[in-house]
Amino acid sequence: MNESDWIRQYIAPLVTAPGASGLRDDVALLSIDGPTVATMDTLVEGVHFLRADPVDTVGQKLIRVNVSDILAKGARPSEALLSIAWPKNRSESEFSALLSGVARDLRELGVSLIGGDLVRTDGPLTVTLSLTGTCIGDGPVRRAGGAPEHALWISGEIGWGALGLEAAQSGVDPDIADRYHVPRIARMDAADIVARLASASVDVSDGLLIDASRLAAASECGVVIDLEAVPLAAPSPDLASILAQCTAGDDYQILMSAPPETRIDGFSKIGFLTESGGLQLRHRGQPVNAPSILGFEHKA
Amino acid sequence: MNESDWIRQYIAPLVTAPGASGLRDDVALLSIDGPTVATMDTLVEGVHFLRADPVDTVGQKLIRVNVSDILAKGARPSEALLSIAWPKNRSESEFSALLSGVARDLRELGVSLIGGDLVRTDGPLTVTLSLTGTCIGDGPVRRAGGAPEHALWISGEIGWGALGLEAAQSGVDPDIADRYHVPRIARMDAADIVARLASASVDVSDGLLIDASRLAAASECGVVIDLEAVPLAAPSPDLASILAQCTAGDDYQILMSAPPETRIDGFSKIGFLTESGGLQLRHRGQPVNAPSILGFEHKA
Repeated sequence: MNESDWIRQYIAPLVTAPGASGLRDDVALLSIDGPTVATMDTLVEGVHFLRADPVDTVGQKLIRVNVSDILAKGARPSEALLSIAWPKNRSESEFSALLSGVARDLRELGVSLIGGDLVRTDGPLTVTLSLTGTCIGDGPVRRAGGAPEHALWISGEIGWGALGLEAAQSGVDPDIADRYHVPRIARMDAADIVARLASASVDVSDGLLIDASRLAAASECGVVIDLEAVPLAAPSPDLASILAQCTAGDDYQILMSAPPETRIDGFSKIGFLTESGGLQLRHRGQPVNAPSILGFEHKA
Repeated sequence: MNESDWIRQYIAPLVTAPGASGLRDDVALLSIDGPTVATMDTLVEGVHFLRADPVDTVGQKLIRVNVSDILAKGARPSEALLSIAWPKNRSESEFSALLSGVARDLRELGVSLIGGDLVRTDGPLTVTLSLTGTCIGDGPVRRAGGAPEHALWISGEIGWGALGLEAAQSGVDPDIADRYHVPRIARMDAADIVARLASASVDVSDGLLIDASRLAAASECGVVIDLEAVPLAAPSPDLASILAQCTAGDDYQILMSAPPETRIDGFSKIGFLTESGGLQLRHRGQPVNAPSILGFEHKA
């Protein structure tokens, strides 16, 4: 592995922004067009993806988990810095595949790659993306900002991450496994909806229940969730199955609150914020005990 | 290890920028104050630092290698995102030490931590920083921009990285080892000098000869270096020792070109750009063959 050659051959062709100087410099000039937010996520082999996962999907997942953070804040993804710690025992063709996955989602999600770093490692493949986003409104929509009686809305379906992981591990259903490898994130125009309508918003990456609790806590509210209203990957009348899906992570949907009279097309209403009372779950009107573990606790 | 607890206890207290919301959100709002550049560098245990290195110095090195990139472009370091892939077998007190090193250099170098990620790894400690900088001029000073007859100037001394690594490995001289653990970078006001006087500029991190060649190539020039003029960590009449120091990396000084009549206080003049001819080395006026390896080739 010659890092300079690999950068020239596989990474530089993906870089078109003039401020990046074709990666032939030490820094990139950001193109700033309004209030700008930034996020950073790292994926580690064996923790966030499996050794056997198609490596192009690792590139896609990295872009998507970062884009999801930006969309949830009512911002459009803009420019990315990519760091790759590449294991000495992986091949050049795998490296090429990783970058082809990166390229696919840069294109599909409108992200511009402007720089980064490539280093060797004796350990697991470790990739980090830092991504900027341009706020559609005056600033990012925060987790704080919700108020009592504001309704809680979710994009897409919950549970595909966990269902997909199971399929990836068992090798039975590649179409479902693909949902784990390449998480479905909210549509690009969800950022406009968030910017226009949300009082508070969060990226549901660690599990619906834990992220709903975080939004409520940041907004100094309690929250009620009607479990039968949550759109699930595997719809079920069984409470244990519902709760499992609502506490599994890796779904990368948007959870937002909005004033009670607001209608939000393409999102599902699953509950509302309250004056107090922490997290309260209901199923068909009956109170349900919250599970002791509400989701993953691994994110900055 | 509970990532959320560690973030709250060790990382959040370092975060004071209002745009970072005390790390209680998914993104940070960048504070933009003029043309803004960004860079990203990753350090991997066993590659960029040693397993036995004091872990607080790993935090300092990470900040410094990134700050050096920003200064070399005539910009002031501004805001950082920090990703830590933390080995399961390292202790909480080591984590606290890493962050105390980060805190020390954030303070010393005027960098504001605004977010990041914390994840577990089965592999070596891997840390990534993404850092923005505010250009003092209209934009970054590039590697391109030098012209024939422009003089070549270097900040500080070359060779401390290699000398320090040797000391760190042998355990003999802790003061010199410290030069490897905590690289001395150019002074903060070097950014003003670069912005005001440099026609081209680069961060010498991979070795003086390779980085000088890169600056010259980007500027479509050749370059002459007078080896006896290079300020060395271990001054020597011996050509082999001089060349070893000039091809060793990890020095993080600034190499810039400037019109021939320019005087640059605090920098040393070590050569000049030419119309063509690639890299030409001289020692006391005599031509010297360039070594086959000019430095590391590992940087994006």
